[in-house]
Amino acid sequence: MSKHVVVIGAVALGPKAACRFKRLEPHSKVTLIDQCPRISYGGCGIPYFVSGEVNSVTELQSTPYHIIRDAEFFRTNKDVDVLTETRATRIDRAAKTVEILNVATGKTDTLHYDKLVLAMGSKANLPPFAGMDLKGITPATNLEEAEMLRDAAASGSVDKCVIVGAGFIGLEMAVAFADMWGIETTVIELQDQVLPGFLSKSMAQMALHDLEDKGVTVLLGESVKAFEGEDGTVTRVVTNKRTIEADLVVLSAGVSPNTALAREAGIDCDTRGAIIVNEFMQTNDPDIYSGGDCVTIPHLVTGKPGYFPLGSMANRQGRVIGTNLADGKATFPGAVGGWVVKLFEQSACGAGLTIESALKEGYDAISVHVEQFDRAHFFPEKALMSLELVVDKPTRRVLGIQGMSELGDALTARINAVVPLLKAHATVDEVSNLEVVYSPPFASAMDIVNAVANVTENVLEGRNHMVSPSQFATLWANRDAEDIFFIDTRLAPNAVPYVEKYPDAWHSIPNEEIRNRIAEIPAGKSVVVVCNTGLRSYEAMLLLNELGVKDVKSAAGGMVAQKKLGSGI
Amino acid sequence: MSKHVVVIGAVALGPKAACRFKRLEPHSKVTLIDQCPRISYGGCGIPYFVSGEVNSVTELQSTPYHIIRDAEFFRTNKDVDVLTETRATRIDRAAKTVEILNVATGKTDTLHYDKLVLAMGSKANLPPFAGMDLKGITPATNLEEAEMLRDAAASGSVDKCVIVGAGFIGLEMAVAFADMWGIETTVIELQDQVLPGFLSKSMAQMALHDLEDKGVTVLLGESVKAFEGEDGTVTRVVTNKRTIEADLVVLSAGVSPNTALAREAGIDCDTRGAIIVNEFMQTNDPDIYSGGDCVTIPHLVTGKPGYFPLGSMANRQGRVIGTNLADGKATFPGAVGGWVVKLFEQSACGAGLTIESALKEGYDAISVHVEQFDRAHFFPEKALMSLELVVDKPTRRVLGIQGMSELGDALTARINAVVPLLKAHATVDEVSNLEVVYSPPFASAMDIVNAVANVTENVLEGRNHMVSPSQFATLWANRDAEDIFFIDTRLAPNAVPYVEKYPDAWHSIPNEEIRNRIAEIPAGKSVVVVCNTGLRSYEAMLLLNELGVKDVKSAAGGMVAQKKLGSGI
Repeated sequence: MSKHVVVIGAVALGPKAACRFKRLEPHSKVTLIDQCPRISYGGCGIPYFVSGEVNSVTELQSTPYHIIRDAEFFRTNKDVDVLTETRATRIDRAAKTVEILNVATGKTDTLHYDKLVLAMGSKANLPPFAGMDLKGITPATNLEEAEMLRDAAASGSVDKCVIVGAGFIGLEMAVAFADMWGIETTVIELQDQVLPGFLSKSMAQMALHDLEDKGVTVLLGESVKAFEGEDGTVTRVVTNKRTIEADLVVLSAGVSPNTALAREAGIDCDTRGAIIVNEFMQTNDPDIYSGGDCVTIPHLVTGKPGYFPLGSMANRQGRVIGTNLADGKATFPGAVGGWVVKLFEQSACGAGLTIESALKEGYDAISVHVEQFDRAHFFPEKALMSLELVVDKPTRRVLGIQGMSELGDALTARINAVVPLLKAHATVDEVSNLEVVYSPPFASAMDIVNAVANVTENVLEGRNHMVSPSQFATLWANRDAEDIFFIDTRLAPNAVPYVEKYPDAWHSIPNEEIRNRIAEIPAGKSVVVVCNTGLRSYEAMLLLNELGVKDVKSAAGGMVAQKKLGSGI
Repeated sequence: MSKHVVVIGAVALGPKAACRFKRLEPHSKVTLIDQCPRISYGGCGIPYFVSGEVNSVTELQSTPYHIIRDAEFFRTNKDVDVLTETRATRIDRAAKTVEILNVATGKTDTLHYDKLVLAMGSKANLPPFAGMDLKGITPATNLEEAEMLRDAAASGSVDKCVIVGAGFIGLEMAVAFADMWGIETTVIELQDQVLPGFLSKSMAQMALHDLEDKGVTVLLGESVKAFEGEDGTVTRVVTNKRTIEADLVVLSAGVSPNTALAREAGIDCDTRGAIIVNEFMQTNDPDIYSGGDCVTIPHLVTGKPGYFPLGSMANRQGRVIGTNLADGKATFPGAVGGWVVKLFEQSACGAGLTIESALKEGYDAISVHVEQFDRAHFFPEKALMSLELVVDKPTRRVLGIQGMSELGDALTARINAVVPLLKAHATVDEVSNLEVVYSPPFASAMDIVNAVANVTENVLEGRNHMVSPSQFATLWANRDAEDIFFIDTRLAPNAVPYVEKYPDAWHSIPNEEIRNRIAEIPAGKSVVVVCNTGLRSYEAMLLLNELGVKDVKSAAGGMVAQKKLGSGI
């Protein structure tokens, strides 16, 4: 039976649902409406347009073969009617109508629907700072804002840029401004780390080091109080700690579901304002579907409602909705929250919970950090990858994994491999045996993803006692107060520069000499052993334990992790 | 309780099991024996040593921090006794002894064991060709052979190299000789494709094109009959079709378990000679463990016994054995057969069954090939990835996935993501919704791994009718005999060069013009539609179906796949 489907919102999920439905039911009618003039674009590409890596904004709107996905394209190629510059102002669920307003002409109209799709996406969080109305302050969520930012950067008139929020978009924008345009860039983050909620303290410190190393100033634990300007344009950002000069301010303090229209129509939402949908992406009104940045879906690690505003979610959910509009029974079970972000030299990637979020969720969790080459160590092109695995102690269940590497694709190869295990509530032992494709140019014979699980098993079973990279850095920084005996267990030539630099505190006892030099270790002191990556120091710890030195901890990730942290040791 | 563990074989699994066990039971004794002088090396790295990418053979024997893993290293650092140049000649299970022979001195001895590990690995298949005893003919399985090959290549005395067998090692060696040393290289393969059993016809054709494009001659469906030489050195290879000049011959016709010793001791083996082990990697003698290239383990897709001679398997299984030697209960459930190989421009990767092997196994299987950019199409650095998904029609179960791409790490990121789903006997719908990490520098919003499943769903549901890339190439090549109407559905400028080249056979009707130009399609003819990658031609097919043209097939992977095949269209 032919029907009329109305889709509100035409960026990612809306067009996907519309086109999938039309392919299944070519004789039905779809009307896609959007309040902006331009539709169906890759919003996640905005930082790469601002940076200049993407030449023109139309590339974000185009198919892979350079056809612009405008209203005409949808009409001709997809037989989908598109109303741009058209805002949905009210949904009447009883009458099954949507009231619309043409924002250019002011004309109103009413559309009848058989099925409705809510794809309004999200909107940038805009905290109520004083001076928010000054020119030069903008989020980076749509093409108009993207063009403003690119034009400003390209004009040469921006010397100093301030970015509010060190989440994904904030950091991508920082890279865009600092790397590609050489603009003095400052990121202000309320929390005490970058990518809060997505990286552990150690990993966040590594990300921070990568940013700072390329000249980005990152102010953590600092909150914006007001913006100040001259002649109506921003010139300063006032925080709780200082005043910073700024020609341009990007607001990237997260996004919230853009669902006022739905709430007013009595669609069930959670406290965040995200629309509640079932596994068919159906709202409490069975004729109304929603997905993408509008909705909450199950977090498959915690089992609780999750919020995953990602273009990939929108696309996959859009297809599910398109199928179900055509009376299909496609489902979307939820997500474990996989993500990846390219910084300067490093990329960061993860899925599931960090150690901090796992503890906050009430898990009796531990996390283990390893550093290892991402392919056979004898292969010439390679990078040292960092991986951190988060595991629930009592059940041995894997709760999350995060990583950092110069070779981002290789990192995604490990995180993607673990995603299905997170979803399946697999144990650490399954990650130990996880099959990942192997040959020397792509992986190690004992790959890092297996290795991080092996080390975690050893920790769970009480054989390996570790301090995380950030804990090691802190212990070392506070070494005058801490009663710790530090041993560098590498071969002497590696340790010598450190012994020379810290003659009283850094002790060189290579693994090979521990048996003979055990008397050098003062009785009753806590011992911390460190090597290049943590492999030798683990064996040193076992040997020390065997020789009666019981209070020994091994520095996870060794000196490689310290270098990535920028701990300055 | 302290025990004595004897490990026969000290390349990959043996040292791993020995060291893991010693870490768990430092007071027990381990004796590691190997008939070669050098031990604990990365045998998979041999092609990269022969190519020169790895400078020295000691790098294959070293830890990541350049310490050579020789007998002294194991004694000092691992407290493991090592007997090199020592061959195990007989196992007496009743007496729990191993008779050993020092191959250098001829001295014999007997070792008592409490637990025994069989880690003899595999040996190269050496078919009984005439002339096998000529100099210059060698497998590439150990360091001595590797050095001979590298020295020969580096000496400049080798102009022509023949490689027998187009499996992983054969192709890696072909790349080593042709790419790095500029040696005229010919690969002879008995079967009618490269990487038989690992790639479909289309994918194998792509791999072949990559090899041929770089000057490697590949002779398929051809068998070696004899080697001929002068002065005791090989000069010619005689096949069933021709005689080829050769200064050097590499034998890479697969490997077989090196288990004569075990069979003589009454250890249960399969018909291939692979030792049968339980999930604890225990043989029929509970005091004897085995793993790696010696054993058969379950193929987790077919449920049948599988054989996976890979260094990664050996390492993971070695750890399991080490744990169980110390009275642990670690298990190794089997494998889905993931693999990856770097060719010239392209890398190939896969897991599970190919379409051909699935059909041979009795599955009512189909496979679907897609071409798509491996990251956001607007991102500057990207590659067109090929993926092929193999699915069981009645159950919708995913049986395998294979791929090809210039950016190998990005390819492994997709194959690794599907491996756990193969193991879990997941359906194609789960691959449609598979969560892979996303941001524009790493993936598409609708990623290729989701897309290949979406297309497969459409094929299973009878909405999409496809011809594979190799089928399209064949249909086109036989176009005079086939009664097919070919339509290029791209925008006219893309199609024009083909219409000019093939004025009678290549028809340009862009999607946008199909409704108006439907009369140009002759009634009753089979129609094949083609575009760049298969996206537009799918929509063209749907539209043609809607307009009453029923016998339409879409060319999977479009012209991109044809280019990768080197079909010359």
